[in-house]
Amino acid sequence: MRTQVAIIGAGPSGLLLGQILSRNGIDNIILERQTGDYVLGRIRAGVLESVTVDALEQAGVTDNLKKNGLVHNGCELVFGDTSFRVDFEKLVNRHVVVYGQTEVTRDLMQAREKIGATTVYEAQEVALHEVESSHPYVTYKHEGQTHRLDCDFIVGCDGFHGVSRPAIPADILKTYECVYPFGWLGLMADTPPVSDELIYVKHERGFVLCSQRSKTRSRYYLQVPLSDKVEDWSDERFWDELRTRLGPERSANLVTGPSIEKSIAPLRSFVTEPMRHHNLFLAGDAAHIVPPTGAKGLNLAASDVLYLSEALLDFYQNQCRDKIESYSDRCLKRIWGAERFSWYMTRMMHTFPDMNHWDHKLQAAEFNQLMNSEHGARLLAENYVGLPY
Amino acid sequence: MRTQVAIIGAGPSGLLLGQILSRNGIDNIILERQTGDYVLGRIRAGVLESVTVDALEQAGVTDNLKKNGLVHNGCELVFGDTSFRVDFEKLVNRHVVVYGQTEVTRDLMQAREKIGATTVYEAQEVALHEVESSHPYVTYKHEGQTHRLDCDFIVGCDGFHGVSRPAIPADILKTYECVYPFGWLGLMADTPPVSDELIYVKHERGFVLCSQRSKTRSRYYLQVPLSDKVEDWSDERFWDELRTRLGPERSANLVTGPSIEKSIAPLRSFVTEPMRHHNLFLAGDAAHIVPPTGAKGLNLAASDVLYLSEALLDFYQNQCRDKIESYSDRCLKRIWGAERFSWYMTRMMHTFPDMNHWDHKLQAAEFNQLMNSEHGARLLAENYVGLPY
Repeated sequence: MRTQVAIIGAGPSGLLLGQILSRNGIDNIILERQTGDYVLGRIRAGVLESVTVDALEQAGVTDNLKKNGLVHNGCELVFGDTSFRVDFEKLVNRHVVVYGQTEVTRDLMQAREKIGATTVYEAQEVALHEVESSHPYVTYKHEGQTHRLDCDFIVGCDGFHGVSRPAIPADILKTYECVYPFGWLGLMADTPPVSDELIYVKHERGFVLCSQRSKTRSRYYLQVPLSDKVEDWSDERFWDELRTRLGPERSANLVTGPSIEKSIAPLRSFVTEPMRHHNLFLAGDAAHIVPPTGAKGLNLAASDVLYLSEALLDFYQNQCRDKIESYSDRCLKRIWGAERFSWYMTRMMHTFPDMNHWDHKLQAAEFNQLMNSEHGARLLAENYVGLPY
Repeated sequence: MRTQVAIIGAGPSGLLLGQILSRNGIDNIILERQTGDYVLGRIRAGVLESVTVDALEQAGVTDNLKKNGLVHNGCELVFGDTSFRVDFEKLVNRHVVVYGQTEVTRDLMQAREKIGATTVYEAQEVALHEVESSHPYVTYKHEGQTHRLDCDFIVGCDGFHGVSRPAIPADILKTYECVYPFGWLGLMADTPPVSDELIYVKHERGFVLCSQRSKTRSRYYLQVPLSDKVEDWSDERFWDELRTRLGPERSANLVTGPSIEKSIAPLRSFVTEPMRHHNLFLAGDAAHIVPPTGAKGLNLAASDVLYLSEALLDFYQNQCRDKIESYSDRCLKRIWGAERFSWYMTRMMHTFPDMNHWDHKLQAAEFNQLMNSEHGARLLAENYVGLPY
């Protein structure tokens, strides 16, 4: 079997890339280890920067987004007794769109099905070969058979635990990592959100995020110790703790209900350099992870895909390799900006077990700067809505 | 002996306060442990915010400042191979004035002498009494005699190691501290500065500051391990290391010469809350220390003094205690802003022995933000020229 671009992973990065390539006449095949339903079952973020909306436009999949996406012109930050609304529209004249990653993935899957491009689900034992040569190929097992997929390029969109990143020799790959001493316990419920906008809360008992997927589906997160298990958290305990951290005034509007999903995720910052090795590219979580505090994960994947599709189009249409050569640097500039922001938001809004009195006061000073300086507020807003592409 | 305000310490805070009070008809006496020459021999910062210039105006001592102060409209930040000029004028339409703390102190001393206000130098065994009552007093020894100075208020301007702060009961006083794992080795020389503007350099061997006191007097600093002694650093070794960290291009303009002062100072962040206990006030270094990276030490002292002189004037002229009551909160708001900024500058521009790969990249991302975001650059400039008073 032969294609131009072999894509490993049918998450949003792989599907988005595949769709943009297909619409521009570049043949591609996606290999995915899991089933489509499994992929759709992964609950992730839901805040889209305009660069991500642009990428979805290029993929031609914005019908549902336009119908159901919620434009958010601001969000609320709460620090102890102090609260501050970040007015994106006023501060930087931009906004974000709330639309779940699951919905993005479903829209992309349906669009791919419609144009008849190939996705091989349940592809087992995927292995990358000869990525340093001009004739790389991928082998995998599917329904008991071993297959070989020849291609010009391989793109690893297979996430943090995927097989693509390790295909870059260890002496070339540099990785940078920061692990945080807590996790996020997330709960999804079919209840109206407690507020029209997202609320980020720094409480002495731990961080809270009041997020949403739609006007009838809420997503809440609580900072919990890494030692906690989902089984420790009944719905009742979750809602009680959420109420405590939100305080009586904010939780007056809280509508509770049975959870439809509940899970604990660790927080991690991680970056791989470079993001290309000869004819192998990495994109999205395969190359970098952000803690979810800045809602940057999906958005970084989208900008990687935009840079990469530009590069591949320029190669196939104009025989120009310049953007292939600069792919890694262009991505990494934006990635490090988002890593910095996600680290900053995480550091400012969480209760760290190892913080001393000085650290707590510094954290408060950081928050106060937002309220006392328009430049500070603009800087945060600019990062939140998405750094320039 | 009796006065209205007893001031402990004849550094710039005490002298500035005394001068503003005297010019407004409020009687005050300054007690200083050292001689006047000793006080003048202490080499400190030399970057004045406009709030400090305003305070000196109120004290009526700007003749020399206007003649010899150098207006700086920007400074240069260098991070490895990257350099960025912070254009204060363009970014926030303001500037700073370079004028040495020694000169500020000398001007204030001469002005005080001229108006005939009392400063007792070499006051020994200074002790504060009954600060919680309406009739506090200070005792001290001078030329073998014990004296008692009765007053309405005592103001502790006696620095970090002074006797005033410990006069606030330990169960009331909260302190916040951060100690940095390196010091600054400073060298003063009567040579023209290497550049018209200040240069802050983050080099892998350590931080450098190229500062100045005038067009013919340079002040350079090198980050050194805390274990280093001044004796380890001959002038020659200093200049060699400075050249290495500046790089060949920047050090091409470096004029070296014999040092006229050389000393190592540790870096510390420290804040005391509250800054008033009944009729005892703390101002300047007695209440807070910043690492010198943001040049905020003298400037914070000046804003403390402005808040305090406002409060005392309002009390004596209008019998109103409101500003006395709010003194500590007003000061601390500005102080925590400056502490945050000094910490941020220190963190971004030094090589920390305990930084890992991730920390180094984050540090670079912080620096890059200044170049990529006008909001980021404005935020830095706004802090550098001085937060609103």
